Amino acid sequence: MGAAVAEADLPALYCPLESAVHRHVRQVDARAVQWIRESGMCASEHEEAWVVATHSTDFYARFAPVADDDRLLATSLWVYWGFAFDDARCDNGPLSSRPAQFNALAGLVQRAAESPSAVDGGERFIRPLQDIVGRFRSFGTPAQVRRFTDAHRAWLSGVCWQIGNQAADRMPDLDEYLAMRLLASGGEPTFAMLELATGLEVPDAELRRPVVRALTEMAIMVAALDNDRHSLRKEMSRGHADQNIYSVLMRHQQLSLPEAVEAATCVRDRIMTRFLQVHDRVGPRAGTELRSYLQGLCHGIRGNAEWGLRVPRYLSLGHVPDAMDEAPLDWADAPADSRCAPLPTAPTLAWWWDDDVL
Amino acid sequence: MGAAVAEADLPALYCPLESAVHRHVRQVDARAVQWIRESGMCASEHEEAWVVATHSTDFYARFAPVADDDRLLATSLWVYWGFAFDDARCDNGPLSSRPAQFNALAGLVQRAAESPSAVDGGERFIRPLQDIVGRFRSFGTPAQVRRFTDAHRAWLSGVCWQIGNQAADRMPDLDEYLAMRLLASGGEPTFAMLELATGLEVPDAELRRPVVRALTEMAIMVAALDNDRHSLRKEMSRGHADQNIYSVLMRHQQLSLPEAVEAATCVRDRIMTRFLQVHDRVGPRAGTELRSYLQGLCHGIRGNAEWGLRVPRYLSLGHVPDAMDEAPLDWADAPADSRCAPLPTAPTLAWWWDDDVL
Repeated sequence: MGAAVAEADLPALYCPLESAVHRHVRQVDARAVQWIRESGMCASEHEEAWVVATHSTDFYARFAPVADDDRLLATSLWVYWGFAFDDARCDNGPLSSRPAQFNALAGLVQRAAESPSAVDGGERFIRPLQDIVGRFRSFGTPAQVRRFTDAHRAWLSGVCWQIGNQAADRMPDLDEYLAMRLLASGGEPTFAMLELATGLEVPDAELRRPVVRALTEMAIMVAALDNDRHSLRKEMSRGHADQNIYSVLMRHQQLSLPEAVEAATCVRDRIMTRFLQVHDRVGPRAGTELRSYLQGLCHGIRGNAEWGLRVPRYLSLGHVPDAMDEAPLDWADAPADSRCAPLPTAPTLAWWWDDDVL
Repeated sequence: MGAAVAEADLPALYCPLESAVHRHVRQVDARAVQWIRESGMCASEHEEAWVVATHSTDFYARFAPVADDDRLLATSLWVYWGFAFDDARCDNGPLSSRPAQFNALAGLVQRAAESPSAVDGGERFIRPLQDIVGRFRSFGTPAQVRRFTDAHRAWLSGVCWQIGNQAADRMPDLDEYLAMRLLASGGEPTFAMLELATGLEVPDAELRRPVVRALTEMAIMVAALDNDRHSLRKEMSRGHADQNIYSVLMRHQQLSLPEAVEAATCVRDRIMTRFLQVHDRVGPRAGTELRSYLQGLCHGIRGNAEWGLRVPRYLSLGHVPDAMDEAPLDWADAPADSRCAPLPTAPTLAWWWDDDVL
C-alpha cells in the first residue's frame, strides 16, 4: 500500500438518507471541550488538540439531533473518550502490537465501566470513563446502561482481535475482516447510545428480533467501511499497511489500489442497498421506541459520513490538526452495486439477505 | 506452588443451599454422550473420554432441576462443549499462551455463535457450537438467546485476559484476578442459560437492576472460587503455577499454601454470606420469572459444589479419567468469615456491599 491517494481518486458516497444535526451542537461542544481539559485523560496539549479536533459533539449531534442537551453531552463525551483511548492505547502507542498487555487493559477498562467501585490502578482513561458511565446511570434505565456496557465489551473484543492480528502480522481475509471490523469500529457502543440519547427504550423483544439486529449490524458496517474510506488518505500518507478493507482486498484478491477502491465501494453499497430495503419494510410497522431507534441508525449512517468527510482526524496530514472543513459535499446518485444477494466472499454476513431468518 | 495438597488439607465448603437434581439426568446424559460422539469436536478417543468424564449433564441437571428434557439436553451440550473447548484451546494446547492467535479464534467462535451463516474455516469447535445455539434459537426467545451470546462474549473476553497474563508471565493481584475470574470461569454463559432451561424470561427491567446483577456476579464468583478449590489438587500435581486464588494470594500477600487456603476460604465465605443476605431480601418480593432465576443461582452454587467435589475432571490425577465419585459430602456448619463489609483488597467487588447502589 505504498501508493498515494487523493480525494479525487475516491468515488462519492451513496447515502440517500436525511441530514440532521442537533441545534445546540456548539453550546454542548463548548461544555465537552471544557470537560476534556479537566478530565485528566490527555497526556499533553498536543494529544488534547487532536482529541478536540475529533469534533465528537458534531459527530453525535448528527446521530441524535433531538436529544436533551445533557444527554447529548454525555454521549458525545463517550465519543471523545473513545477516540482518545483509541489513539493512545489501540491504533498507536506501546500496546498497539502487544495483545497480552492490551487484553488486560481492556479487561480492566471494561470492569471499570461496569463496577462503580472499581479503582483506576493508575490508568488515566479509567476515571473519565467512570464519570461518563455515571452520567448514563443518572438518566438512563438499567437496561439501557447494560446494553451500552455489553456493546462496549463487544467493541473492546474487536480491538483485541485487531491488535492480535497486528502483532502476529496476520492480514485477515475479507470474511474475518468484516466480522472483526463490525466490533473494532466502535459502532456497537456508538449505536447503543441512541437509546441513552433519546431516552426511548426499545422493548427487549423488539430490539432482539433478528431483523433489528441485522439492521443494526448493517448500519455499523456501512459506517465502518465509510471510515475506512475516510482514513485511507491518512493511512497511505503514513505508509501503514494496517488492516482495512483496501489492504484486505489487495492482499487476498490480488487487486491494485484502484481496483480495491472499486471493489470496496461495491461491498459497501450492496450492504447500504440491503439496509434501505429492510428498513423500509420494518420501519413503517414499528412502535414509537423502535421507530426512533431505526431513525437513529439512519441518522448515524448519514451523520458519520458527513462528519468523516470533513473532520481533521481524517483530513489533516500535518502535525497539528486543521480546522473542520466546511466545503459542501458531493454524493453519488446511485449505488455502485445494488444486487440483492449476499456477498459470496463474506458468509459471516450472508444471513442479512436471508428473509427466512429475518 | 510446588507443595502437594490432599483433600484433607482443604476445609469443607459452607453452602446452606438446597440440593436438587433433574430426575431424567441419566436419560438426557445418554443422548448428550451420543451427540458428543457424532459432533466431530473431539480430536481423539482420549480427548472424548475426558470430555464425557466432565459429566456436564450431571452438572447442569443441578442448575436446572425442572427443565424440559430437550432444554436440559441443549444446555448440557453447551457445558460439554465449553469444557472441551477450554481443554483443547484455552487452558492447554498451543494457543494457551499465544494471545494474538487466541484473540482471533475467540472472535471467530463468537461470531459463529451469533451469525447463523458463518462458516467454520476448519475449526472443529465451530459447527458443534452452531448446532447448540441453533437449539437455543428453536426454543428460546430472541432476548434469551441474545443474553446468552452476550454472556458468551464476556466469558471469551476473560479467557483472552487470562491467556494474555499467562503469555506475559504476569500474575495479577487479587483485585484484577477476581475481575478476570468473574469472566474466565464461564459462569456468565452458564447462568445465562438458566432462562433457556426453564423457559421463563426475566423482564429486562428486573434482570438489569443492580441488585440482581450483584447477585449474579456473587453466584458466579462463589462457584468460580469453589472451582479453584476443586482443581487445586490437580494443578499442584502438575506443578503448574497457573493463575488461581491461591497462587495470587501466595504471590502478592506472601502467604504459604496453608495460609492462602485459609485466606481464600474467607474471601469465598464472605461473598457467600453476602449473597445469602441479599438473596433473602430480594427473593420474597420477586415476580415468578425473577424468583425462578434467583432460585437457579442458588441451585447453581450448590450444584457446582456437589459436582466439583466428585467429578473426575478435578479428582482423577491419571491419564484416564476414573468413574464419578459417589462418596457422601461433608459441609461446613458456618462460614469462615461472615463479616458484612467489602474485601479491602478487592475494590472491583466493593459495590456488592453498598446498599445505596443496590
